[in-house]
Amino acid sequence: MIEPLRFDNDALHLIDQTKLPLELVDLVCTTVDQVHDAISRLVVRGAPAIGIAAAYGVCLAGNASKNATKNASANNYLEAIESLATSRPTAVNLFWALDRMKAIVDANTDSESLKDQLIAEARLIHEEDIQMGEAIGRHGATLLTGCQRVLTHCNAGGLATSKWGTALAPIYHLHRSGAAIEVFADETRPLMQGARLTAWELARSGVPVTVLTDSMAGSLLQTGTIDAVIVGADRIAANGDAANKIGTYPLAVLAKHHQVPFYVAAPSSTFDFALASGDLIPIEQRAREEVASPGGIKMVPDEASVVNPAFDVTPAELITAIITEQGNIDSPNANRIAELLLR
Amino acid sequence: MIEPLRFDNDALHLIDQTKLPLELVDLVCTTVDQVHDAISRLVVRGAPAIGIAAAYGVCLAGNASKNATKNASANNYLEAIESLATSRPTAVNLFWALDRMKAIVDANTDSESLKDQLIAEARLIHEEDIQMGEAIGRHGATLLTGCQRVLTHCNAGGLATSKWGTALAPIYHLHRSGAAIEVFADETRPLMQGARLTAWELARSGVPVTVLTDSMAGSLLQTGTIDAVIVGADRIAANGDAANKIGTYPLAVLAKHHQVPFYVAAPSSTFDFALASGDLIPIEQRAREEVASPGGIKMVPDEASVVNPAFDVTPAELITAIITEQGNIDSPNANRIAELLLR
Repeated sequence: MIEPLRFDNDALHLIDQTKLPLELVDLVCTTVDQVHDAISRLVVRGAPAIGIAAAYGVCLAGNASKNATKNASANNYLEAIESLATSRPTAVNLFWALDRMKAIVDANTDSESLKDQLIAEARLIHEEDIQMGEAIGRHGATLLTGCQRVLTHCNAGGLATSKWGTALAPIYHLHRSGAAIEVFADETRPLMQGARLTAWELARSGVPVTVLTDSMAGSLLQTGTIDAVIVGADRIAANGDAANKIGTYPLAVLAKHHQVPFYVAAPSSTFDFALASGDLIPIEQRAREEVASPGGIKMVPDEASVVNPAFDVTPAELITAIITEQGNIDSPNANRIAELLLR
Repeated sequence: MIEPLRFDNDALHLIDQTKLPLELVDLVCTTVDQVHDAISRLVVRGAPAIGIAAAYGVCLAGNASKNATKNASANNYLEAIESLATSRPTAVNLFWALDRMKAIVDANTDSESLKDQLIAEARLIHEEDIQMGEAIGRHGATLLTGCQRVLTHCNAGGLATSKWGTALAPIYHLHRSGAAIEVFADETRPLMQGARLTAWELARSGVPVTVLTDSMAGSLLQTGTIDAVIVGADRIAANGDAANKIGTYPLAVLAKHHQVPFYVAAPSSTFDFALASGDLIPIEQRAREEVASPGGIKMVPDEASVVNPAFDVTPAELITAIITEQGNIDSPNANRIAELLLR
């Protein structure tokens, strides 16, 4: 399995995802600023992975405050937390992880042990994420058993988390148990996370993977090539409507049309119970260049407009089941979701 | 309006479509070999445009045989026809146009006038294509009247024909009649004909156009942004099943899901009455690099497989109407198609 994050000997090691799949570069961060930069530049991406990287990043403030007094040292950590919170604007897990680190600083009474306590907390956040992925893999595998060819979109794999991922977790689970499972990965324009990241991490783990343009998924479903579709989620409303990378919704409509199951895999922390339904989820519009100049090569004439919504929303009625670390929610709706997650 | 082909003073002028949208290059061909090369390299593309270019290409053989005897001259033309037939393997219009040129050579008894007769025939093929586009525009406009935002895929515009195109013909018709109509153009991976060509020719003609990745069409349909979808076709079976650029079929399923009309615009020559239904249409699989290395930049790791079907097939039951130069066929099926086109 890949290890996208590793904390060792006062340094955070990251797989530089901007260099994949052409080069496997181990980026070593020894300062808070370097971690800030790595998160900003998408060296590390995916909400859970960002949270873990930030938590370890806080620990690195200690490198510069070894002989400081308790207050100075605590202040260094608080400054690091404040700084890292500005590295990405919308990743919920970033703020959640930094809040946990801040609670450790606030509760601390012994400056000698503060750094060790912070590292322990970061390792706990990291370990919980691995366990979350393992549990999603186990629950999802019960649904995917017997599926030989599974379609996915974007990257909801190990690279977006710390090891197993969300959508890819059940696939890794089945592959390691010896099942014959292969993955069809949408390339996922505009940023090509499917072609660059999903294909890379699956191939590296020995899972057979085939890349297609997003426009080819319909044809594969039509010809009966695909047994199931599984994707991650960025935010899920209380009724089960799920926001995910742009291009997810058409897959759900196509899966329904061809009576192929459509699964969403996400940790329970992805649910936003403050939002009754998916129309309340705000959709980020991103920069023109991502669509107009793929790979830096201009394709769209200046006179043409461009749209670039980063996400779309799949209504719950198109979702066969939502797979969480706490269990599966079949035919999700507000009641069934609350029953599992809010009981 | 754009003029992708122009024959003037013993030279064929082509807009070099490989250079669009960055540069507008007028490629001047004065020999048969230059036209052969232009067709092979996709300088000119789209079945109707290829046929017209080849017809004019035959005329250029005369440049090298001005003072030859009748037989030598006829042989030069026949050699040109034979050569041009090898420029693209599957474009039906190419062979159809060259057969018409060959019939002129075969019937000729006066070597003095042969060249003029060939130029006249090529101009006739060209003129018929313009009229075909004009008629499709007129018929299609009756269906699109009142539609303000129309989605299209790939390029079935003037650049694929000689002036009006097929799918874009009704849009040009309505735009010129003063209707407020704007186009949303799928970029159309892998070869980006939507981003590069459709956006360019619409913008140049003053039609407002917005480019999106193929994965964004579902979201636009879901939010009610699109009033109608219109596409071209590469081959249509006797029952109305239509093969078109990969990514067309998912649009048809999405349009149905959202009760948005889905139109196919194509000349009657696109119908293949030898094929009872769409499953008999052979689907070309193209090179790995088109998917794996967009714009020459490698995105897919070597260990991953790639699929690259060039077309998909939309079943007739998802098509609201087929628009031809002879009229519209609502809810197309074998009977309705035969009634209009085989009566």
